[in-house]
Amino acid sequence: METFLPSDPDFESRVRASFAQQEMLTSLGAQIGLVRAGEVHLTAPYDASFTQQDGFLHAGIVTTLMDSACGYAAYSLMPGGSRVLTVEFKVNLLYPARGDGFRAEGCVIKAGRTLTVCEGKLFSIEKEKESLCAIMQATIICIQEKE
Amino acid sequence: METFLPSDPDFESRVRASFAQQEMLTSLGAQIGLVRAGEVHLTAPYDASFTQQDGFLHAGIVTTLMDSACGYAAYSLMPGGSRVLTVEFKVNLLYPARGDGFRAEGCVIKAGRTLTVCEGKLFSIEKEKESLCAIMQATIICIQEKE
Amino acid sequence: METFLPSDPDFESRVRASFAQQEMLTSLGAQIGLVRAGEVHLTAPYDASFTQQDGFLHAGIVTTLMDSACGYAAYSLMPGGSRVLTVEFKVNLLYPARGDGFRAEGCVIKAGRTLTVCEGKLFSIEKEKESLCAIMQATIICIQEKE
Amino acid sequence: METFLPSDPDFESRVRASFAQQEMLTSLGAQIGLVRAGEVHLTAPYDASFTQQDGFLHAGIVTTLMDSACGYAAYSLMPGGSRVLTVEFKVNLLYPARGDGFRAEGCVIKAGRTLTVCEGKLFSIEKEKESLCAIMQATIICIQEKE
Repeated sequence: METFLPSDPDFESRVRASFAQQEMLTSLGAQIGLVRAGEVHLTAPYDASFTQQDGFLHAGIVTTLMDSACGYAAYSLMPGGSRVLTVEFKVNLLYPARGDGFRAEGCVIKAGRTLTVCEGKLFSIEKEKESLCAIMQATIICIQEKE
Repeated sequence: METFLPSDPDFESRVRASFAQQEMLTSLGAQIGLVRAGEVHLTAPYDASFTQQDGFLHAGIVTTLMDSACGYAAYSLMPGGSRVLTVEFKVNLLYPARGDGFRAEGCVIKAGRTLTVCEGKLFSIEKEKESLCAIMQATIICIQEKE
Repeated sequence: METFLPSDPDFESRVRASFAQQEMLTSLGAQIGLVRAGEVHLTAPYDASFTQQDGFLHAGIVTTLMDSACGYAAYSLMPGGSRVLTVEFKVNLLYPARGDGFRAEGCVIKAGRTLTVCEGKLFSIEKEKESLCAIMQATIICIQEKE
Repeated sequence: METFLPSDPDFESRVRASFAQQEMLTSLGAQIGLVRAGEVHLTAPYDASFTQQDGFLHAGIVTTLMDSACGYAAYSLMPGGSRVLTVEFKVNLLYPARGDGFRAEGCVIKAGRTLTVCEGKLFSIEKEKESLCAIMQATIICIQEKE
């Protein structure tokens, strides 16, 4: 994986502060793990409130976790004072999302001034064993506050 | 739009019964509206518990609503006794998802024996005015119970 | 479909001039048809040089035609002096691309200052009957010459 | 990367034979490189006949190379006597595709009985230096001859 130089030395506290403002992630009981320049990890417990008809985590929640990890991975490389929005993403669901909990990884593939491309992965965790259950390819945009 | 002939005359009650089993949709306060062969509509209220850092509905919830509408549109054309799973989807977020509530539409573009391709749309509703805020292109698979 | 106001009254000649510069489209024998603000159509004959192992038009050429139609639909709404590049697209292949010829449609769904979202369709033409054989959802970027 | 066990010991000759039947790949001057279970590499020279308005390789040809690499990576794991078709893909174009030549990699992420999910990459080659210029996430289907 490429190594990225963050333009804002305070990127980690900025990412963690934004994370804390997302009601959605609080509702999911999500926690932020690794935060480094261009890569962010999240975890969330299994919660029956967010399941589909077979009792698996809903594809939309699988997406929420990967999108948030990707968005923050992109945001870690953006200048201070900027905002981050997802432009689009594509998700392949590989295996049913069941287990005790889940871990999402977001990694920057290309960081541009305006657009950043990320890859996301969701792992289900069952008895401490992780299995890849979904992948994402996403485009994220940096909005400069002054625009 | 193409007109589809359902293989199961009881498709509507089957779709509504499956909808009622999704804890996720209950948590969102979602309600199923139109159910016809190849097309399903859902609505959900704005709920601050499911928002991102700017107070807009989280992209993952925008996805949840469109994916559910697409999945049920596909399921409406599947034979009785089959199960439905999403293979993959791609979402473009056009405008921030804010408003009093939201309406998702899922429509079948091509119905195959195994794979069905759908298009989804999410509209935000503000003072009874609807605005398109996201679109989806999705692939859904039919799992025959006997397989 | 939404009606778009072009910012450049000369958009049609600008689109046709750019089309004529694409070696790829010349190699395919593609021709530009309808050009209006936010919508462009192309046609191309069947050519065995561009087929996959079963004799159908290769998915990459199906993509070429839809991407070009979408790119020019987006370009029709951009200011004079700007350049257009595709950021990303997603394609669903619905039916094998066989026939006497093909017609691609690109339509703008949302036109932004920087990013434009388009939908593309590819129809195969056999004995004057058109059948939808692929769909695209694409994001296009406007590059201002002065940047 | 995961290691896959091919179900057909003759997968390599089957992949190479199918490659040789694609008129499209012949037209591009593409050559098949590495063929192993779950991974296939292709190369192609720069050819001005397949360029867009700025002289870069057209996005549709970038797609052709990645789609073919992904399709053959999936096909390498399919049983003898089966056919392979692309269901859908999503491509992010990271950098303009210019250079002396190009190399595409396709890797299987999940191999299923019916559907296989692959990741593709396109590298441009300039003075022997490779740069990643596009990525793909694709779904491929196995058609059993007897079906």
